[in-house]
Amino acid sequence: MKLLRFGLPGAEKAGALDAQGRVRDLSLLIPDWTPEWLAPERLRALAAIDLDKMPLVEGAVRFGVPLAGIRQFVAIGLNYRKHAEESGLPLPAEPVVFTKALTSLSGANDDIVLPQGSEETDWEIELGFVIGKTARKVAKEEALDYVAGYCLANDVSERNWQIKRNGQWGKGKSFDSFGPVGPWLTTADEIPNPQTLNMELSVNGVVKQQSNTADMIFPVAEIIAYLSQFMTLLPGDLIITGTPAGVGLGMKPPQFLAKGDVVTLRIDQLGSQTQTVV
Amino acid sequence: MKLLRFGLPGAEKAGALDAQGRVRDLSLLIPDWTPEWLAPERLRALAAIDLDKMPLVEGAVRFGVPLAGIRQFVAIGLNYRKHAEESGLPLPAEPVVFTKALTSLSGANDDIVLPQGSEETDWEIELGFVIGKTARKVAKEEALDYVAGYCLANDVSERNWQIKRNGQWGKGKSFDSFGPVGPWLTTADEIPNPQTLNMELSVNGVVKQQSNTADMIFPVAEIIAYLSQFMTLLPGDLIITGTPAGVGLGMKPPQFLAKGDVVTLRIDQLGSQTQTVV
Repeated sequence: MKLLRFGLPGAEKAGALDAQGRVRDLSLLIPDWTPEWLAPERLRALAAIDLDKMPLVEGAVRFGVPLAGIRQFVAIGLNYRKHAEESGLPLPAEPVVFTKALTSLSGANDDIVLPQGSEETDWEIELGFVIGKTARKVAKEEALDYVAGYCLANDVSERNWQIKRNGQWGKGKSFDSFGPVGPWLTTADEIPNPQTLNMELSVNGVVKQQSNTADMIFPVAEIIAYLSQFMTLLPGDLIITGTPAGVGLGMKPPQFLAKGDVVTLRIDQLGSQTQTVV
Repeated sequence: MKLLRFGLPGAEKAGALDAQGRVRDLSLLIPDWTPEWLAPERLRALAAIDLDKMPLVEGAVRFGVPLAGIRQFVAIGLNYRKHAEESGLPLPAEPVVFTKALTSLSGANDDIVLPQGSEETDWEIELGFVIGKTARKVAKEEALDYVAGYCLANDVSERNWQIKRNGQWGKGKSFDSFGPVGPWLTTADEIPNPQTLNMELSVNGVVKQQSNTADMIFPVAEIIAYLSQFMTLLPGDLIITGTPAGVGLGMKPPQFLAKGDVVTLRIDQLGSQTQTVV
């Protein structure tokens, strides 16, 4: 199932995508998509809902973040070989982990708001996943059982704040609008192997990043096993898994986002995003 | 007012400390201390409650985290001159910012659980503060208006995971039980100047850290102004402000916590904590 939330910011309703790719309104059954809906048995129960019998949402809709009540927003850095190289950094021996502010979360097609004076705002297409049940010291072999679903994310990054403002990357990753997520959360039953997905990001129609999640240094299962060694992961936690080569910082000379630029992203089975830079 | 939550983990009730330092049960009036209670006008309204008319809680109580529903747990690093020196790191030109997992939060006197195999678990006494209203691009001069209250915190840190496991400090700071906070949240009206508080931490009765918040490099108001430039701070966000000199890592040779050790902490007006290492 493809879970989504549609409507104006702060007033989103629960919905789902039907087999024809149309938005169905589920709000009469589901008050909102919150972390308790992600438990494996509840996700299975959702299959009992016949989407064709739910109201069709006509016309253009705004997609909100596909899940309400996300508590932790964790990100993995340098998780694709060529991206580590373009960043001029050694391949990590274990995952690089940082966090983004919850307040950076935004809808899939919401504008990216350039921070005042920013000249180094960059794009990063990433596979995201959401935890479905509490995870502590999980073995790699069982790790994918803890995933409720997958989503597309843009880890928008202000490189000056990330790199030149005294360590710890979160600073450049946490501005409002720097975390477009969605348009939907594809439940894990539809993606038995998350390491097979093509991904592509373009700026103003020019392809900048093109890769496949098969190229990750630490695949999803290893990320879960690793994180759950030193922190407890909760239902609804959102983890994004690093970006492939082709970010603006890696270009010679570097290229960054400017007002009016349009960023488009897509990952197999996870839909697409289009953001305008303002 | 000194807001607190008492009771077993996950079943805490709202309370407050009365003028005699006794715990009063406020749960008949207040369902729980959640972020919406921290708005300035609601904090002022609490003064109408005559604590002497509320039920007295007899006997020993467990103190939980004094606030439920914390969304972001942000920490400042190297914010005392001598601590930066003992860490062998240059004085920061601007605040070092990292995050701790929400799941590291624990009650003031709860046990510190050593991670399996950890030989480098360390203590860090810190002044914490909680945001009362949404803060975006706040000027330093107005920043303290955004503080709902102050609390004592121990930023327990596993140095191997923090420093030697591939950058970004959050890894060593996020284990369950690594964030004792409380016993209470002293509302900001009682602490007009947060840069005047004596603080002291002992291990097994031996004083290790002794300082005053006057020695911070970046005081509370500057931290809020700084953070709110690149992220939106929400009511209930908990920010801890860095530790003074005297951590185990800075000793020659380094000293770390072992099973059975007892850590005691106190900060003026914020109460005390006692944790046993297990």
